[in-house]
Order: sequence, then C-alpha cells, then structure tokens
Amino acid sequence: MVREINVGLVGLGTIGSGVVEILQTNSKLIEKRTGVKINLVAVCDKFTERAKQLKVNDICVSDYKLLLKNKKINVIVELIGGYEPARTIIMDAIKAKKHVVTANKAVLAKHGYEIFSSAQKNKVNVLFEASVGGCIPIIRTIEESFSSDNINCIYGILNGTTNFILTRMNEGMSYEVALKKAQELGFAERDPTFDVEGKDAAQKMFLLASLAFDAKFASEPFTCGITNLTKKDMDYAKELGYSIKLLAIAKKENGEVELRIQPSMVPKSSLFYGVNNEVNAVLLSGKQTGEIFLSGKGAGKLPTATVVVTDIIELASRTRVAQRFFQNAKIKPLSNTISKYYFRVGLLDQPGGLAAVAKIFAEEKISISGCEQKEISGEIVPVVFITHKATQGQMDAAVKKCNALACVKDKVVIIRIEDLK
Amino acid sequence: MVREINVGLVGLGTIGSGVVEILQTNSKLIEKRTGVKINLVAVCDKFTERAKQLKVNDICVSDYKLLLKNKKINVIVELIGGYEPARTIIMDAIKAKKHVVTANKAVLAKHGYEIFSSAQKNKVNVLFEASVGGCIPIIRTIEESFSSDNINCIYGILNGTTNFILTRMNEGMSYEVALKKAQELGFAERDPTFDVEGKDAAQKMFLLASLAFDAKFASEPFTCGITNLTKKDMDYAKELGYSIKLLAIAKKENGEVELRIQPSMVPKSSLFYGVNNEVNAVLLSGKQTGEIFLSGKGAGKLPTATVVVTDIIELASRTRVAQRFFQNAKIKPLSNTISKYYFRVGLLDQPGGLAAVAKIFAEEKISISGCEQKEISGEIVPVVFITHKATQGQMDAAVKKCNALACVKDKVVIIRIEDLK
Repeated sequence: MVREINVGLVGLGTIGSGVVEILQTNSKLIEKRTGVKINLVAVCDKFTERAKQLKVNDICVSDYKLLLKNKKINVIVELIGGYEPARTIIMDAIKAKKHVVTANKAVLAKHGYEIFSSAQKNKVNVLFEASVGGCIPIIRTIEESFSSDNINCIYGILNGTTNFILTRMNEGMSYEVALKKAQELGFAERDPTFDVEGKDAAQKMFLLASLAFDAKFASEPFTCGITNLTKKDMDYAKELGYSIKLLAIAKKENGEVELRIQPSMVPKSSLFYGVNNEVNAVLLSGKQTGEIFLSGKGAGKLPTATVVVTDIIELASRTRVAQRFFQNAKIKPLSNTISKYYFRVGLLDQPGGLAAVAKIFAEEKISISGCEQKEISGEIVPVVFITHKATQGQMDAAVKKCNALACVKDKVVIIRIEDLK
Repeated sequence: MVREINVGLVGLGTIGSGVVEILQTNSKLIEKRTGVKINLVAVCDKFTERAKQLKVNDICVSDYKLLLKNKKINVIVELIGGYEPARTIIMDAIKAKKHVVTANKAVLAKHGYEIFSSAQKNKVNVLFEASVGGCIPIIRTIEESFSSDNINCIYGILNGTTNFILTRMNEGMSYEVALKKAQELGFAERDPTFDVEGKDAAQKMFLLASLAFDAKFASEPFTCGITNLTKKDMDYAKELGYSIKLLAIAKKENGEVELRIQPSMVPKSSLFYGVNNEVNAVLLSGKQTGEIFLSGKGAGKLPTATVVVTDIIELASRTRVAQRFFQNAKIKPLSNTISKYYFRVGLLDQPGGLAAVAKIFAEEKISISGCEQKEISGEIVPVVFITHKATQGQMDAAVKKCNALACVKDKVVIIRIEDLK
C-alpha cells in the first residue's frame, strides 16, 4: 500500500538543501512508517551547480516552468522566499493543477487570499506549516485540531531574532551588543530591520489570525518593534517579576479583531516567560478546548526542512481539498485595545512632580495598581507606575499630557502588560 | 466537494455526550471549514435514555453489533473506556472494515499492538488523539510532524490528577488535603489509586514511546507514584529552585529504551516548572527538529470531545492507512538509568554523622554537587545532598548503606532531578 508522490523542488538554499538531505537520508524510514514514497523528480535553482553539490541525481533546471510541464510531478515545493517570483511560481503551479508546499510567510501574508482561493478553484492543496513558528505544528493545530472549535485568541512569540536579542538584553546586554551577537551567530540578518521592527512577526500573525478567525483583513496589524527598548526598562521589568517579549496578539471579540505586535511584559507565571533565545511559542485559546501552548525552534535548516517534508507526506495522505473561507473582518483600532501598562517617567527631584502625574492619571480615568519611586540621588528621579486595565487611547493621552509637564525630564515610556497564564 | 462520514458512537458518558453536543452545535461550521459533513447515524449505550436526554434523534441501541451491521456507518467512535468490552468492540469494528476513533488509552496500552496490526490488515484507520494528553495534539505530532525524523526522547506530565495534587502541595497543602480537594473538584476519582500510583501516566507513556520509537515492549515501564511524597521534600525542592512533578520519561539510546514514571525535580528554567493544576505537557526531542514543547488541558468533557471530533474529520480527509510497524525493544533496567539526585537524610545531632554518609557516597562513587545542613535545634538534623549524575543502582546501594547507619534516624528519601531546558 505504498503511495507515491513526485516532487519538484524550487530553491536550493538553506531549507531546500535541508529537504534534499532529509529525503536522501530518511526516505526508507518515511516509507516504512507512513507508506508514502517521496520521489524528488526535479529541482530548480538559478544556480544549477547547487544541485551538483547536493548530489541530486535528478533533473536540475533553472526555469521552474519546466517543472510545471513535467506531468509526473504532482507537488511543487517553493523554497525561494520573498514576494516575487515566489507568488508567480505558486500561482502557476496551482493553475497547472499541482499541489504546493511552501515555507514562505511573506508571500502568504501578502497574497494568501488570492493563492488559497485559486487553489480551491483548481482543487489542489497549499500546505505551509513551515511558514510560521518553525517546527511548531501551529498551522495544523489551527486548521485541524481546532476545526470544530472557535478560537478566541492567539498570543505568539513568532520571531526568533528579536527573542534572542531580548533574552540577551534581559541578561544585561545593550540592544546594540545583543544585535551584534545575534548577527554573529546567524540569528539576525545583516539588515535586521524586518525582524527588529516586528514586520516578520506581523506577517506571521496576520496569517495565523486569518486562518483562526476565517478572517479577511483589509489592513495590516499595528506593529511596533524592539528598537526603542532600553536596558533600564528591561531591568525594571525583571525587578517587577516580568519579562519583556515581542508579543504578537490576535483576539476576536464582538466581531472585531484585535491584531497587534508590541513589546509586552509577561508575568513569571506565564509559560511565555521561560521562552528564551531563538525559540518561538504560541498560545491558542478555544471556546471548547481551552488553552494550548506550543513552543519550539522558530527557524533553522533541519527543523524547518523536516516540517516541509511533513507537508509533502501529508499531501500524499489526504484526499480532501482545504475549504478555507475568509469573511471580511475589521481590525479594532489600537486606541480601543485594553491592557495593563507599565509607565516610567523621569521627574525633576522637586515637590509636586508626582502629584502632577497622578492628576493626569485621574483626568484620563486611569487607575493605578502600583507605584515605585526609588531613593536615587540625582537631579532626575525615575518613577514607575503599573496601571490597572486601560485603553491605549487613554494611555496615549496621559503620555502626551505628562510629556508636556515642566517637571518631566525623561520622557514617558509605556509598555503593555499582558495578563497571561 | 463535501465528503460525508457516517458515525456510529458507542458510549454516551461524559466525552460521548460532549461529542454529540459539538456535532449538534458546530456541524455547519465544520462543513464550511473542512468540507466534511459528519452524520451521527446511530448511538449505542446500555442506558438508552441517555440518548433521549441528549435529544439524539438518531437510532439508539444498546447492542453495538447493530452499529457494525449498519452498512451506512463507516466509523465507530468508542468512548466507553476500560479494557472490555472496549477491546472486543474495537476489534469487531475493525473486522467489519470500519474505521475507529477512540479516547481509550487503557485498551491501547494493553492491546494496541494487536489492534493496530488488525487495522492494517483490514485497511482501516484507528485514530486515538484523545487518549493521551487531552487536547494536546501529541499523537499527530509524533506520527505526522516527526515522521521523517528520529525522536530521541519524550518527557511528559501526562496525568492531570497528580499534577493538580502536586500543585496544591507546592502551595503548602498536605497530600491528604490536596487529594480531597482534587476529589471535590472532580479532578480525582473516589478511588484515586490508578492516578496517584502513576499507572495512568505509565499507560500513556507506554503508548507514546511505542509510537515514537516504533517499539514493541514486552514489559511495562517502571512506575512510582506520588503517595510517598512529603511536604518536607516539596519545601526543600522549592527552596533549591525546583518543583516536583510526576514525570513520565522515555529515551532511546544505543538500542535500549529508558521508560519510567517517577516523581522528579524540574528546574525553574524548564517550561515544565510552570505547568500547574490539571494541565498536561509533553516535550519531544528529535534529531532534526530539536525540542518541541506542547501543553494544554489533560482532560475535561469539551476539550476531549473536540479532539475526538478532530479525529473523525481526519478520517474523512485521508486516504492512506497508517503503516505502523513495531520492532521488539528492550526496556533499560531502572538500575542503569542516570540522573542527578536529591538525597535527604535525618541524622542524630552528634559528631561523625555527615562523615559516615559522605564515606558511603565515596564508596559508591557518587559525586556530590551540593550539601545543606540547616542549623536546626533538635535531636534529628535533616541533611540534603544534591548529587552529580549517578545511576539508580548506585543510589539504591547508597540508600541501603545509609539506612543501616546507627546515626540515621529519618530514613533516606531520594528524588531524581531531571536536567530539562
């Protein structure tokens, strides 16, 4: 009862070569365990010499269209990344009635609705487990384990680069040194903008939220990265029993979806607190299921390639075509989103400062759950407040008023505190 | 492109009625999302009035054989639990060429090899995600996500009852009071033996290890429950930065499998440290994938029923029949298994006691990484040692010798310390 699946692989970079390696090493094991025989029929890369280095004995071409014309091939594995030509390759593969496996979150975040719709029309499947959360089986958990449930919210640490940097900063490194360390170890790109500004995490959460809520969003999530975080706030967080993580959050409430990526403080009691280094993690909460927490390596050659191979096996095992449906969904304005807040301000060491700030909180109806002013000798005294729940709108108004006070010398820093279990 | 699956459900207890409830509420959603239409064709329970209470309009019988004779039905969902008649029902269903979904870890731990082999012969699938770890997608993670990888080890908190009791004990309750609390809240049975003695966790890990290592074990895992744990040791653990959990462990090394269920200390840095109350958790480590950590509710009506429904949808979506193969595997003798240890002994407050214990450690070649003797006034002084890695055999020998010393008044307690990330 062996089922065969014939693969055309596009892109022999890090992940692509990992896939080739796994198929070369573990094909017999896969066949024995699953009854699926994976044949790597042809590979495609601009640099055809890569195939030679990998000892791929199969057809190697530099034009992906040749793979589409090959009638034997029933699945195209796209591993080149980025928007184009990835989008065109995927769309052409679908039109050629070939299933698609991809690890490309960028193309799916930008063109996913179009790609999924075309796949459904052409009765092929697009699998993309490797595109979010590395080796964490998050897509299949949403699409399969929760298919009879309603997901209320998703929290995620979805970017390994920033989590690595924050872990180092939590140990005392400055942002700059931590970033350099991440670059040296290959956890950060030479131009780290996409990661450190939260855009990578935003694309991933956009995709997860679309699937979890059957939602079609017309706009992008609010995204704030980690570049403005200071050691001072990391230290305060630690002292208060929190750790700062770049959290991606999606919550569905009253028809609206809260969708945002922000550095957030997570309490010691949360499993996210212990998610360090390049590890990713996701918490899903469903109406029936309650909470599921998943974590694992967010990137890396073999972890990611293993997931790609799992998707290929899955394609060989299933008959049904995914029936994704997406309904227009509105993203909640950031100003209406609610959480607790950390609020730090540097005041001139003279009478009246604290009273002036407290008055502003009262005006904006923000309730304070804690306040700390250390005995520090110096002209500027840092004061830290922890608020009860308030909207980002209330907080922004308070920040604006505070920064205008004459006694404020170090401008206000606010960081959201997420009440996670 | 709607696929229909016709279900015969056996057992209308807690989970069974949860499944009926979900199908009654979410059938349209499931169909829209997955293209799968689940028809509950007939139910079977000794108490046919249960079906009436659930407003099941379908055929309701008290003899499961009628479901097997019904040609329309293509999947039997077994939710009665226990060994018999569950085993007979499952085997008969398979012989009648019907797929099976079950939440029954007991029958699979005891008769799994026979059941899986018969299913393969009869070309039907047996799905059982709900049998281990409640809503955690652990079976599919092992069987699908890791199908092209080699799993090195599995660590699990697989029993919600004991984890709930340990959480309360960690907060200061005695074992007896914590057990009573668990019983009041429905987390523990009136006769809690099966849970608190670790047998439930043992069955679950036996099943996971069989699947993960393609292994057929001829004997059962070494199993030690939580009934002998004292508040004293819980407090010491806490002070030392550990938490005591009932850990189920399976490791493959040099062809042998370490398979054991023991109360173990886990460090603060491990995600297991924060797994509290009735929550379950599993850590899988694969050669390519690295570590994946999954956690979620280990039991409960709707969490478990949701997973059963997921398995039904899965059956409607796949064509291939699982090709499980199991090779004879030897369980490593407990005495050869290695870890660090916590070692507490109560000594008479007189010279020479510590020296005598230290001498025994030296004789057994056990290296000490830490020792603490508090200034306690009283006749008996508790002394705590933390060892470097040693075998259980070395430790057992040391314990025996120590307990024979005249200066030992409180007998030795040892607890394994697991080095988890």
